Amino acid sequence: MLKVISLDAALDLVLAGVKTWARVQSVPLGCAGGRVLAQDAVAGEDLPAFSRSMVDGYAVLASDTFGASAAQPPLLRLAGEVKMGERAAFSLSPGECAAVWTGGELPQGADAMVMLEDAEALGGGWIAIESPSAPGRNIVFRGDDAKAGETVAPAGKRLSARDIGALAALGYSEVSVLSETRVCVLSTGDELIDCAEAPAGAQIRDCNGPMLTAACGLAGAKASFCGRVPDDEDTLLGAMRRHAAECELLLLSGGSSAGAKDAAARCLDRLGEVFFHGIAVKPGKPTLAGRIGETLVVGLPGHPAAAYMMFHALVYPALAALQGQKLQEHKVSARLSTAAPSNHGREELVAVRLEGDRAVPIAAKSGLVVPLARADGYVRIPRDTEGLMKDALVDVILF
Amino acid sequence: MLKVISLDAALDLVLAGVKTWARVQSVPLGCAGGRVLAQDAVAGEDLPAFSRSMVDGYAVLASDTFGASAAQPPLLRLAGEVKMGERAAFSLSPGECAAVWTGGELPQGADAMVMLEDAEALGGGWIAIESPSAPGRNIVFRGDDAKAGETVAPAGKRLSARDIGALAALGYSEVSVLSETRVCVLSTGDELIDCAEAPAGAQIRDCNGPMLTAACGLAGAKASFCGRVPDDEDTLLGAMRRHAAECELLLLSGGSSAGAKDAAARCLDRLGEVFFHGIAVKPGKPTLAGRIGETLVVGLPGHPAAAYMMFHALVYPALAALQGQKLQEHKVSARLSTAAPSNHGREELVAVRLEGDRAVPIAAKSGLVVPLARADGYVRIPRDTEGLMKDALVDVILF
Repeated sequence: MLKVISLDAALDLVLAGVKTWARVQSVPLGCAGGRVLAQDAVAGEDLPAFSRSMVDGYAVLASDTFGASAAQPPLLRLAGEVKMGERAAFSLSPGECAAVWTGGELPQGADAMVMLEDAEALGGGWIAIESPSAPGRNIVFRGDDAKAGETVAPAGKRLSARDIGALAALGYSEVSVLSETRVCVLSTGDELIDCAEAPAGAQIRDCNGPMLTAACGLAGAKASFCGRVPDDEDTLLGAMRRHAAECELLLLSGGSSAGAKDAAARCLDRLGEVFFHGIAVKPGKPTLAGRIGETLVVGLPGHPAAAYMMFHALVYPALAALQGQKLQEHKVSARLSTAAPSNHGREELVAVRLEGDRAVPIAAKSGLVVPLARADGYVRIPRDTEGLMKDALVDVILF
Repeated sequence: MLKVISLDAALDLVLAGVKTWARVQSVPLGCAGGRVLAQDAVAGEDLPAFSRSMVDGYAVLASDTFGASAAQPPLLRLAGEVKMGERAAFSLSPGECAAVWTGGELPQGADAMVMLEDAEALGGGWIAIESPSAPGRNIVFRGDDAKAGETVAPAGKRLSARDIGALAALGYSEVSVLSETRVCVLSTGDELIDCAEAPAGAQIRDCNGPMLTAACGLAGAKASFCGRVPDDEDTLLGAMRRHAAECELLLLSGGSSAGAKDAAARCLDRLGEVFFHGIAVKPGKPTLAGRIGETLVVGLPGHPAAAYMMFHALVYPALAALQGQKLQEHKVSARLSTAAPSNHGREELVAVRLEGDRAVPIAAKSGLVVPLARADGYVRIPRDTEGLMKDALVDVILF
């Protein structure tokens, strides 16, 4: 029998086993979306570097426009034009204005813009201002966006498209980011064959290998499926040793039941350290974790639904932690469509489909994979209950 | 002046302009996570192909175990062992049992499993059964997972890791998926330079190009930044014609204000069709959309915050629709930390930062990009209001 711990305790041990990886690389800004910044991004200069107009119109001294209306427009002398893409080479005195296009620099002295549609060029260099403007109106002042020396995005931030825009504006063409987490996925079991093969005898196609590899990839990791290992302890030992050296997370599936052919736990114990072997949860009991050197190792059950549930509960948070992130669990509230009895002394994870505001438990024997693919998430039933009643309000953790 | 339409009407026109693309490709199953299935995936066979055990233990006739206890265990004759990975070559009669490992086939006649820990091997081929088992207990029957001919994942489904697992179990090694949406991003404006360059005069670094390219990439599209085009109508016309032929979505930024240098709308009108030019929204008024052939074209404002808001409101849904998907908007409820006046007759989008359950409007002049990078989402203020009061309960649409 396995000496089991709770799912929450298992998660704590997995996260405590995560090393913050110092693997850093420099990537072109255009490839940095979704990556995690390895060092603070600091503004090297004021942004914008000069005060500029946000509209097409006339730069003015706001005080010259107070009280302006179409009926009584003050007339300002056109002192010049600041062409798009050019700096302002002159300054304004009271009674003067300057044509400035969107993005253009305001001449010295100007402190507001009047939009083109609120002015009329009378000819002879005179502009009639038909609407008042307030100081700062339609202007971005120097440094409004960022001041030189200001941290624009801190180390550890996952870069959004908007961050990429901000860094581009500040002149970053490359950024230093955490390297993608490398994951090796190994399937174990004599009975497994590749999904392209036709099963002979009692062989079954390995679905955990592709499923777990895809799940890591969708979580942003660089995951490689490293093949199927037969139930031979020496072979497994060699494969675990070799692949642990190539990655930050080694994922095994199968080979961790307490049955006669269990070997992963013994191999892990010989190569490194076992954090735990066995979780008081259904499905997912024969799950183990530990480390080989600084590589985190998680052994998932062979049954696909159990493997995926434990992946979701333990490995997703670990993948986030390996990138210095804290996973945001997505939950919705719903009412159980049927009672979910649970009285076996283990926490239970019940896969459900959402239908409106109802959570419908799916017949998810832990050996099945197709019903799991149709589920939207799962409900946790604590170990100290007799289960949940029909219509109970539950949190559904979304896949 | 632009003839403006509402943001909702603009979204309807953009989505109506999306063609359902018939571009389909076959990819290895391992690369199909997150892709959209192009045709129904159907089970070609019963899964599992035989009834199998979910535990290590003894296959029995359940009726032989009724009333069993440790004190009064029925004795069953061990008829044989089904080794892992082998088919059962014998059948059970009443009074008999067979050793079966997890995943092994049940012999004909057996209808339940007794776990190893609920039985004791007495020697001489006799097994004491210490706990009763019910028919079907610890067994997956043939076809429980999927029946031959059943649709396992319908065309149009975005493949999750669990779908990949289900398809692997059913022997799919390649799947037919929609090709990734190709997006070309063009920045327009004489004043723009590459983010790696140092601005001279009134030049500014192009941040919309990298930002919009990254945003499309994070949304799963295959986005290419195709460079900056100066404010020259013939040059723009050539670039739009050339790049529209290479993609399903052509994104422009800048060049769509009603100012003197506006050219994108005229080019679009010459090359194809303009759906609309101008939206009654702040920021984002000078936004346009149309098509060139079957390629959707969206022209975003030059101001980065305005460009990103309109990207979020119009282009994200369009990217989803181009993959046959309906975008799920993520919203949270919050209370405004300060009043947000808005009485200019246009719908207003106010970027906010979330602090607990409070939405704090950020100073987001539409020319700024750094404050935008720090925002968590935005609030829509309808055009027919005077704005929102402090403490108003609002839906924050998350970026």
